[in-house]
Amino acid sequence: MKALVLFSGGVDSTTCLAMAIDKYSRQNVAALSISYGQKHKKEIEAAKKIAAFYGVEQFFLDLKDIFNLSDCSLLEHSNKEIPLKSYSEQMEKSSGPVSTYVPFRNGLFLSAAASVALSKGCEAVYYGAHGDDAAGNAYPDCTAEFNEAMGIAIFEGSGKKLILEAPFIGKSKAEVVRVGLKLNVPYNLTWSCYQGLDKPCGKCATCLDRKAAFLANSICED
Amino acid sequence: MKALVLFSGGVDSTTCLAMAIDKYSRQNVAALSISYGQKHKKEIEAAKKIAAFYGVEQFFLDLKDIFNLSDCSLLEHSNKEIPLKSYSEQMEKSSGPVSTYVPFRNGLFLSAAASVALSKGCEAVYYGAHGDDAAGNAYPDCTAEFNEAMGIAIFEGSGKKLILEAPFIGKSKAEVVRVGLKLNVPYNLTWSCYQGLDKPCGKCATCLDRKAAFLANSICED
Repeated sequence: MKALVLFSGGVDSTTCLAMAIDKYSRQNVAALSISYGQKHKKEIEAAKKIAAFYGVEQFFLDLKDIFNLSDCSLLEHSNKEIPLKSYSEQMEKSSGPVSTYVPFRNGLFLSAAASVALSKGCEAVYYGAHGDDAAGNAYPDCTAEFNEAMGIAIFEGSGKKLILEAPFIGKSKAEVVRVGLKLNVPYNLTWSCYQGLDKPCGKCATCLDRKAAFLANSICED
Repeated sequence: MKALVLFSGGVDSTTCLAMAIDKYSRQNVAALSISYGQKHKKEIEAAKKIAAFYGVEQFFLDLKDIFNLSDCSLLEHSNKEIPLKSYSEQMEKSSGPVSTYVPFRNGLFLSAAASVALSKGCEAVYYGAHGDDAAGNAYPDCTAEFNEAMGIAIFEGSGKKLILEAPFIGKSKAEVVRVGLKLNVPYNLTWSCYQGLDKPCGKCATCLDRKAAFLANSICED
């Protein structure tokens, strides 16, 4: 195994998976999908379908206990509602992080991925953080500063055996989709919406971001 | 809550706990003890007794599933024996990491600690990595390079809310004990041995390191 992709079943991580497969071939790529008490468990089902579509090995972890004490609105035990407005609207009155920021989630998930990747003899961990999520510090664990430090921590802490690949740091979600369209990513199988409903709500920040990213590529998913 | 201490119940993390209590007072300090499939589960019992001794709040996590695929000799599912010789002897014929290196364990544990610490409103995470464990890259996740990068990742990824305190980076275990003796750390309650026996084996690397660190402070624990 060469590369492990942190894989939620959303637009960004599915594009990452396609890039890793394009570089290493599917036999050398595995996906890691993590449950963490998220309201939108449905993304894990999407992740399973996409891993099957590509024919890659998939690992699963459940890390929800770590967030038992968090009041993040993305978590099913939280009483907070998921805001039905864009990130920029959410940050008009206060700076980030937004209420859907799960405390140090990307640090935790990347560390778990590094542990699994080392056990499987991988040389790279991929994840799909991008610049739109980092803007205004909405998600501080998507910033270039976080990514650079985490990459060094993983390289040094693994005995210089593992590198972190974050191809979309500083790029927009529209650019992510542009890359994915060239790689024929099966976006119809992906799941973005933060609410745990049968269909995407079309109103939460991630639904709005998804729609805008596809429209920027002249695609209307409705 | 002000500080969360990554707390195994061994010499180094117990000294860290004492330092955090000395700085913040016990009401503002909590301990996080993590099971990860280690052969020496006994350290968790020691950690409980020490947390009770100090009267600090204690959290527990079980992260063993993350290491299911690892063949590290420290893990109970591994067929490998724990080497009964010092770290320097273990590295005479090969460089680090040693066979008891658990893949990216400190990165994972610090990330989990950062998640819990943010949920509790802490401003600092403490851990007891020291220079003897880093020597020769025996444990690459104890090095100054790893620690510096992980500290930046935690600071940036938390939205600049959380700092990482590693007071023993670059220091020897003998220096750790010297600090702890001044703080009256109850070392008789701590557990170091990597083997899951009733009494310390006295032969594994951590038993040997512990003995040497106390002897350097003119204390014989036998």
